[in-house]
Amino acid sequence: MRRSEHPLLSSFIVHSAVLCGGTHGNERTGVTCVRRRQGEEPDREPSPDLLPRPQQPETFQLTPVIANPKAVHLNRRYVDFDLNRCFATEDLSCQDWPDYERQRAGVLNQRFGPKGGSDPACQLLIDLHTTTADLGPTVIINEEDLFARLLAAAVQAELPQLRVLSYFAAPGGKALRDTSAGAGAPGGGGPAASHHPGDYPYLAEITTSGIEVEIGPIPQGLVRGDTQIMNERIVNSLVKTVDSWNRDTPLEIPETLLVYRFTGDQDYPRDHRGAITAMIHPDFQGRDFSILAPGDPLFLDFQGNTIPYQGPGGLRPVFINEASYYEKRTAFTLTEEQTLPLVPR
Amino acid sequence: MRRSEHPLLSSFIVHSAVLCGGTHGNERTGVTCVRRRQGEEPDREPSPDLLPRPQQPETFQLTPVIANPKAVHLNRRYVDFDLNRCFATEDLSCQDWPDYERQRAGVLNQRFGPKGGSDPACQLLIDLHTTTADLGPTVIINEEDLFARLLAAAVQAELPQLRVLSYFAAPGGKALRDTSAGAGAPGGGGPAASHHPGDYPYLAEITTSGIEVEIGPIPQGLVRGDTQIMNERIVNSLVKTVDSWNRDTPLEIPETLLVYRFTGDQDYPRDHRGAITAMIHPDFQGRDFSILAPGDPLFLDFQGNTIPYQGPGGLRPVFINEASYYEKRTAFTLTEEQTLPLVPR
Repeated sequence: MRRSEHPLLSSFIVHSAVLCGGTHGNERTGVTCVRRRQGEEPDREPSPDLLPRPQQPETFQLTPVIANPKAVHLNRRYVDFDLNRCFATEDLSCQDWPDYERQRAGVLNQRFGPKGGSDPACQLLIDLHTTTADLGPTVIINEEDLFARLLAAAVQAELPQLRVLSYFAAPGGKALRDTSAGAGAPGGGGPAASHHPGDYPYLAEITTSGIEVEIGPIPQGLVRGDTQIMNERIVNSLVKTVDSWNRDTPLEIPETLLVYRFTGDQDYPRDHRGAITAMIHPDFQGRDFSILAPGDPLFLDFQGNTIPYQGPGGLRPVFINEASYYEKRTAFTLTEEQTLPLVPR
Repeated sequence: MRRSEHPLLSSFIVHSAVLCGGTHGNERTGVTCVRRRQGEEPDREPSPDLLPRPQQPETFQLTPVIANPKAVHLNRRYVDFDLNRCFATEDLSCQDWPDYERQRAGVLNQRFGPKGGSDPACQLLIDLHTTTADLGPTVIINEEDLFARLLAAAVQAELPQLRVLSYFAAPGGKALRDTSAGAGAPGGGGPAASHHPGDYPYLAEITTSGIEVEIGPIPQGLVRGDTQIMNERIVNSLVKTVDSWNRDTPLEIPETLLVYRFTGDQDYPRDHRGAITAMIHPDFQGRDFSILAPGDPLFLDFQGNTIPYQGPGGLRPVFINEASYYEKRTAFTLTEEQTLPLVPR
C-alpha cells in the first residue's frame, strides 16, 4: 500500500504533526517522551539499544507538547475537568469556560486544529496515555479516520503484540460506546449527552487524523522502563510510517485491520447511596481482551460473594480496573472484534 | 512463647486497639478494609472462602478508623502534608498548625495515644498501606517495639511469604534510616531533622505498640482483589494473635525473626535544576528484596545509558519505584538483613 494508490488519501500529506504527552497529568510516560523530544541539546550520539533514540521526522514537522502542564505539575489527572473529554465541537465553541482544562482545550484547538476545519494547522495528532489496566501496548483510533487505520496497521506490522481499539458512529448516528451514564460524573464521564454523532470529545480529534497510544499496566504517577521503551518504539514507528507515507514509499501492511470496537461500559455494583460495593474479581483482573462468557466471575463483593457476568457472549473486556474510571462509573469496557479494510472498497 | 513467660511483656495486655486505613488517601485497600469493619450491619453469614470474613476480636476492642478522611475523599495521598510524617513528638506538641494533616495528627494522637504516654487509650495501632513497588505482603515495625516483633513473627508463621521491614535507632542515637535529604520536600520527606533519636513521625508510634501493613505492587487509587484478600488475611492474623496473647495462649513462633532493616534511601539522578534524568532500569524494576551487587544496573537515563550500582555489596533494595516517593527523593530504600531475638536475652 502506497499513498498514490489510495483512492481517497492519495493527496493527503502530513506537513505538521503534534506529539502530546501529559494530557492526563499523572500519566508520566507521555510526559517523559515529550520532554526527551523537547530537550534543548538533543542527543547526537546513537543511544544504546535498550531505550530507542527518538526517531526524527524527515518529511514533516513534529511538535512535542505537554498538553496539560498544570495537571502535570500537580501530578494529577486533571485540575478541574478531564482534558481528554473537552473537545466536543459545542464545548469548543464556547469562549468563556471558567475551568482550566476547557480553556486549555481552546488553546490547543486554536494552535493545532481547529477541529473540523478544512485546513487545520496540524494534519496528525499523537496523544500519549497509560492505564492501570493490563492492556499491553495499544493504540486507539476513530474507525472513520482512514489514515489512523493505516498508521495502526503499520505499527502493528512492526510490533505484532500491538492491539487496536476503536470507536465510531454507527450508520444510524448513535455512538456505539455508551458512556452517557458517566456524563454527569466529576471531571467528565464520556461525551456529553448533547454531542453530535461521531463528534467525540477527545484531543486526538482536533487534527485531520489522530491516534492515541495507550499502554498498561502501569500505576499513575510513575515512569517504568518497560512502558517507556514500548511507548518510544510505538512513537518511532508512527514517525517512520508518516515519513514513508509522505514519500509515497509502500507501507508493508496487510489488507485488513483487526480492531476491538467499544460497545459499552460496565459500572461497579453500588449501593443506594452510590458507594461501590464490590471489586473486580481476582480471576477477572488482568483478563483484558479475553472473551467473556456468561457465568464468568466479574466482581467479588465486599461480603465475599462472586458476581458473574450475565451479558451476551463473545465480547472482550478492556480497561479492567482502570484507576481513573471509578469516578466515570466504569469498571471495564466491552468491545467486539471487527475486521476493517485498510482501503475502502 | 506465651505472654506469662515473657520477661518484659508478661503483664502487657491489649485492651483497646485501632485499625487505621486511608492514612494515605489514595491507598484504597486499607480504606476498604476499614469500611468493611465499620459496616452498620455486619455480615452474619459465613463469607465464602475467597475473601476472608473479618475476624472479630474476642478479648479486646478494635476501632476501625479512616485516618485521613479528607484525603480519602479527594483520593490523594494527602491534602497539605503527608499524615504519616506528622507524629514526631515535637510536632505533636505544637497546637496551632495551619495544615489539615498536622491538625488531624493531633486529633488521632489525643484519641488513641498520646504518644509516649504511660497509659495510652490504645495499646496497639495497625496502620494499613499499599505501595506501587513489588514488595509482596510486608509489615513494618519499629525494632525497639518488642510486641510488634511477636506480632510480625506470628503473622509470618501463618503466612510464610510475609516479609518484615524494620527501623530503629542505633545505640549511638543516630536513626539508621537516613531520610534527611527529603526533609524539605513537599509534603514531608523523612523525619524532620530535629526529631529525637528513635522518635519516628509515623502514625503507628502513638500507641504502646504499632505495626504497618504494606502490600504491593498495586497502583494508587484502586482496589485489587488479590491485594485486598492478602490485606484481610494479615489483619485477621493480627487480631487472632492479639486474642491469643491476651488469653496467654502460646504463640507458635520461632525464636528469632528475620527483618530487613532500613539503612538509607537512594535518590534518582537529577540535573542541576533538580529534574529527574533517569528511570529505574527495567532489569531492576520489581527486584525488591534481592541482593544488590556493585555493577548491577540501577537506572536507565533518558539518553539510554545504564547507570550501575556503586555502593557496598550485600544490601537489599525495597520500595523500588514507589510513586509517592519521587517527591521524597527516594528511588528505592536499602536494607540489610538482621536476625532479631523474639525474647530479649
